Amino acid sequence: MGDISRSESDGVILKNPNIVSLKEDVLYHISLSSGTHDLKEMFGDIKFVCMGGTPKRMEGFAHFIQKELNIKLPTGTILEDISRHSYRYSMFKIGPVLSISHGMGIPSVSIMLHEVIKLMYHAQCKNVTFIRIGTCGGIGLPGGSLVITEEAVDGLMRPYLELHVLGKMVQRPAILDSELAKEIKSLANEKFPHYKTVLGRTMCTYDFYEGQGRLDGAFCDYDEESKLAYLRKLEEMNIVNMEMESLAFAAMCNHAGIKGAVVCVALLNRLQGDQVNTPKEILEEWQHRPQEIVAEFIKRRLGME
Amino acid sequence: MGDISRSESDGVILKNPNIVSLKEDVLYHISLSSGTHDLKEMFGDIKFVCMGGTPKRMEGFAHFIQKELNIKLPTGTILEDISRHSYRYSMFKIGPVLSISHGMGIPSVSIMLHEVIKLMYHAQCKNVTFIRIGTCGGIGLPGGSLVITEEAVDGLMRPYLELHVLGKMVQRPAILDSELAKEIKSLANEKFPHYKTVLGRTMCTYDFYEGQGRLDGAFCDYDEESKLAYLRKLEEMNIVNMEMESLAFAAMCNHAGIKGAVVCVALLNRLQGDQVNTPKEILEEWQHRPQEIVAEFIKRRLGME
Repeated sequence: MGDISRSESDGVILKNPNIVSLKEDVLYHISLSSGTHDLKEMFGDIKFVCMGGTPKRMEGFAHFIQKELNIKLPTGTILEDISRHSYRYSMFKIGPVLSISHGMGIPSVSIMLHEVIKLMYHAQCKNVTFIRIGTCGGIGLPGGSLVITEEAVDGLMRPYLELHVLGKMVQRPAILDSELAKEIKSLANEKFPHYKTVLGRTMCTYDFYEGQGRLDGAFCDYDEESKLAYLRKLEEMNIVNMEMESLAFAAMCNHAGIKGAVVCVALLNRLQGDQVNTPKEILEEWQHRPQEIVAEFIKRRLGME
Repeated sequence: MGDISRSESDGVILKNPNIVSLKEDVLYHISLSSGTHDLKEMFGDIKFVCMGGTPKRMEGFAHFIQKELNIKLPTGTILEDISRHSYRYSMFKIGPVLSISHGMGIPSVSIMLHEVIKLMYHAQCKNVTFIRIGTCGGIGLPGGSLVITEEAVDGLMRPYLELHVLGKMVQRPAILDSELAKEIKSLANEKFPHYKTVLGRTMCTYDFYEGQGRLDGAFCDYDEESKLAYLRKLEEMNIVNMEMESLAFAAMCNHAGIKGAVVCVALLNRLQGDQVNTPKEILEEWQHRPQEIVAEFIKRRLGME
């Protein structure tokens, strides 16, 4: 246990012995600091950290969960973006829920996770669950389908995150909590039987175009036939969707001893095309679906049903 | 030339034969489309595409370059974020200059570059120069120093971008235009002799904490001594700074036949620490320096001196 700091039992594991001896820990990209904020007082009650790509979606989720949890703000107050001074991420707090944007791709989500995991540690939060609420391309699934990730793999089907640390390659297994995934899946079936919801493997890529076998990027040196053969091979291997953050999310939650889940909605079926050209109103309705499921999950966990 | 579309001579090379036959090309993440916008009319005069991490910095650059180029907007009009409906990136146009945010990390900048390269192609822009205006950690350079990248390498010192395409590893050389880098360097020396400006190699990482040898992430299993030994080794190999986008920027500009430059300001000297705790006002002054140099470069190219 020499290299591990755990805030308390069931707290967040901080696999970094240096933090405890820092006089001040500046969480630069989320615009908080242990030196200027009482993080325990501000965030000690957090039980759910929900994240997704855009500030707008996560601000919308903050308002939605506020309504769902029936949380009243003091008269004359409104929700404020806690990280607005960073100009990097947006963060909202609604009772026990944090709603944070993570931008696009593994590096962007990883900076945020480093700092939010440290935030949970400084705030001495216990039994925290992290949930990514995302969008994705479905493989053999129509637009609007929901995917709960069982396992994340990279573009070469490897179930781990690769990091370059001090010039050496390090691999971290991208393991998600399978009980949590099943719990969310069964809740989705119960509450939203009209949504198509599946459990499956997610391919997480570093590139949206060539990295996901699209034909419509600035570069492409394969044809439609090779693309479809590739996507069908993925389908045979139970890859049900592709997105760009789950590998780091899974690896970092696992490394920190945090239970994490990834719930994404498919914006299109990649076996039928590459471009997202569904009307905006329909896309917005689809993007709300993971939020509805996650709100039900949080309500059930809080005994609010 | 079968797999290459070039809009005109000196135009952007589009190494994708599929785009020409698309009925509509939706540039989803920048909220434009060849079907709904006359891209040639809107963007045909662009000669400089400037990009950086945050929407705020690039909005600030848009206003700064407007003043520097003495561009008057019609009475009663203001600059508008062209990509505001995407909630992903911010984009401003000021005469021949585009100013765009790219978020953090290689995947985020790569999505934007795919779509902006296609935008340049559809708009039939000619002789376009791309410039990244960024922030970085200096290696042996004090905060406020400017680095113009000669060559970008990854965290294992490899000068290429790795991509997983249809399940196979592809490598693209991260080559920047050395004449352009020298031109910007000599302009900086001439116009801003009071700024420390260097040409050098840039290490581009996929992670801000462990990936850059920081001791203050959520995870760390090395000590200060190993970290410093590593950073000193990098210094010996003429690595002068670390950031998170240059590898993809260089590889994609090179692949598209676009001349690109990376001009970053160091927010700290990594040999002296990990945390960014310089006062905000000083950080803001430093972050303005690459903008000043790039504005001078654009003015010189436009014959406005």
